[in-house]
Amino acid sequence: MDAARLQARLGELGEIGSTGDGGCARLALTDEDRAGRDLVVTWMRDLGLVVQVDRVGNVVALRAGREPGPPVMCGSHIDTVATGGIYDGNLGVLAGLEVLETLAAAGVTPRRAMAVAFFTDEEGSRFAPDMLGSLVYAGGMTVEDAYDVVSIDGARFGEELARIGYLGSTPCPGIAPHAYVELHIEQGPVLERGGEVIGAVTGVQGISWQELRLAGQFNHAGTTPMALRHDAGFAAASVAVFARRLSEEIGGHQVATVGKLDLRPDLVNVVAGAAVMTVDLRNTDEGLLEEAEHRMSVEIDVLCAREGVSVERRQLARFDPVAFDARIVDLVEKTALDAGLPVRRLPSGAGHDAQMLARLCPSGMVFVPSVGGVSHNPSELTLPEHLEAGANVLLEVLLRLAEEDVVE
Amino acid sequence: MDAARLQARLGELGEIGSTGDGGCARLALTDEDRAGRDLVVTWMRDLGLVVQVDRVGNVVALRAGREPGPPVMCGSHIDTVATGGIYDGNLGVLAGLEVLETLAAAGVTPRRAMAVAFFTDEEGSRFAPDMLGSLVYAGGMTVEDAYDVVSIDGARFGEELARIGYLGSTPCPGIAPHAYVELHIEQGPVLERGGEVIGAVTGVQGISWQELRLAGQFNHAGTTPMALRHDAGFAAASVAVFARRLSEEIGGHQVATVGKLDLRPDLVNVVAGAAVMTVDLRNTDEGLLEEAEHRMSVEIDVLCAREGVSVERRQLARFDPVAFDARIVDLVEKTALDAGLPVRRLPSGAGHDAQMLARLCPSGMVFVPSVGGVSHNPSELTLPEHLEAGANVLLEVLLRLAEEDVVE
Repeated sequence: MDAARLQARLGELGEIGSTGDGGCARLALTDEDRAGRDLVVTWMRDLGLVVQVDRVGNVVALRAGREPGPPVMCGSHIDTVATGGIYDGNLGVLAGLEVLETLAAAGVTPRRAMAVAFFTDEEGSRFAPDMLGSLVYAGGMTVEDAYDVVSIDGARFGEELARIGYLGSTPCPGIAPHAYVELHIEQGPVLERGGEVIGAVTGVQGISWQELRLAGQFNHAGTTPMALRHDAGFAAASVAVFARRLSEEIGGHQVATVGKLDLRPDLVNVVAGAAVMTVDLRNTDEGLLEEAEHRMSVEIDVLCAREGVSVERRQLARFDPVAFDARIVDLVEKTALDAGLPVRRLPSGAGHDAQMLARLCPSGMVFVPSVGGVSHNPSELTLPEHLEAGANVLLEVLLRLAEEDVVE
Repeated sequence: MDAARLQARLGELGEIGSTGDGGCARLALTDEDRAGRDLVVTWMRDLGLVVQVDRVGNVVALRAGREPGPPVMCGSHIDTVATGGIYDGNLGVLAGLEVLETLAAAGVTPRRAMAVAFFTDEEGSRFAPDMLGSLVYAGGMTVEDAYDVVSIDGARFGEELARIGYLGSTPCPGIAPHAYVELHIEQGPVLERGGEVIGAVTGVQGISWQELRLAGQFNHAGTTPMALRHDAGFAAASVAVFARRLSEEIGGHQVATVGKLDLRPDLVNVVAGAAVMTVDLRNTDEGLLEEAEHRMSVEIDVLCAREGVSVERRQLARFDPVAFDARIVDLVEKTALDAGLPVRRLPSGAGHDAQMLARLCPSGMVFVPSVGGVSHNPSELTLPEHLEAGANVLLEVLLRLAEEDVVE
């Protein structure tokens, strides 16, 4: 494995859409996304891989094995958020490319075919939902529905896909791989805090996103007695404070976040007449996630009724928790241990393409540490030695899956 | 008193800067403000009043009395907020005009001179602070400092004042009137709720406005365990919830409002790394207001320290409570009672020019009900019969002050 080449490719891909501060902006199906895709596809073709583009722009590059049959697949995505770094997603794709190049250079052809893929619009920053490409690949959304998705800038997914030249002909849902393994940065602080280099990802937290539109009454902040207020801002703040309490009471892996909260008219001397906010609840356990949703819902009703504020709810996203294939989780853990790398089993707090592929085949993930837990940020960083360690674990795991009968 | 003429003038002035939905936008020193000023000054001149424009654009129209000496003054302002109605401020000025016209028509010349004034930039929506014109009139700010105030659109007060042709020559501070009485809409729901037609305003609440800039750490809402967060949004929400509790614990006239709260980056799946918010505290009692400020400050420190969030504070405004002249408050109350109008003594929750004039002379205010307590809104409304009642009380009170020795 050539760590320097991997690092160089991460840098080169990061130049496309560079924000000049170490960060990267390649939102899905923009010109920058096209340029990034073109570069990676060029690298794939240079390796002699067979490149297939499916009807929603997912790109799969195949290397034949000694025997026919579905490939062992790795991959991730190369789209970024608007304030992205150069590792998120890209690492999994380019490390996969590095694995295939290393095998080719060593003249190794495993029993099974191998593939590296990048999936369209994983971030969901331009077209909702996130993980759209892998969702369609796995059969969770039709191609037609995907085409009709409208971006934050008003463009249709199908038109933008055709515009950038990535409306391919390979059908969706795609073929079920023999297994799928995704290397990704952790995007959180857990591995760094624990001093581990490798994360054997046990699954992905279930996600519940809700938007609340609270409507109270605009009032003068000086002339309106407290008892006569219908303060949408106060109700919203109360929901945010309850979210924290809820996470503490449920404990464990439960997280709860109010990251968006907008008041109207948002003025110092006006009691807010309206508020729009989001509630993000996640848990690895579906039962506990449902409990969190239920308790949050009840509390919202109580708080809003008490304040005389109406509430409209909209589900923005809902994904069940995903448990990765236990054999692959074990294999990742054992591979790291055999290499003398400190490893931790942990769930992913973020969504990943691997959770969609898990619908089709035994799947798993390898995490490497994020410095400071920072991601979706120009200062996103994974240390070179951790990139190398992660890529080596990926190589070893893929080889075992391609050669042996770890999973059937 | 010609109620129809008063109503017609309110409507005519409200056409200038009309927002087409019954509302009005005449921000201070804009072209709309100039047009509004020109119209009112024309009406003043048509009545034969002596119109003086001072160095910050305050306009005083005088009618001589039987004896020399300082006038009994009424007035208010004609600038509006961006989403203003047609009554706020305008009523006090146009009712004053109506009083002088009524006296002229009746051939009545009271002992003392009488004046109606409109003060520049009462709303503070374009140039901070609010009540700027009356503040300068009362000697609370120098003309030079006022000229250097920069608007939300980047324009200098002095240059805008000259541009619209209202940089006058009458010096500031202005002459101390014999007394000052301002008729104004309540802008709150208290009179309407109580079924009163007239408010005898006892004073103005003290105002404490603070801006807080909270800085925590941006984090991924899925991958960052609750215990490792420095959530500026949670800290801000906790401050907003505490503000409500504080107002309840202090009770009485204490109000507390978080009307502005902005998160960064304000996304569903990102723990807010920064928040900007305001805290608006008001009380009629300076000691209690100081207690509220102190307790809020302590709580902010506790909440931010617990969350690992830093806080920068900025005082946006601070006015002590103002008590109006007890004799004028009594006179307003008695005048209403004598006219058979239901009256309530109440403090003003909003700031008014009268509180600045109270630094110079015995001052008071007359409130009339606001339908639904709504103000700073196109749907701002005071019923015609209440306009008439308020103008009649103003007339009676001004006449008594101009003729008798109610105050010395």
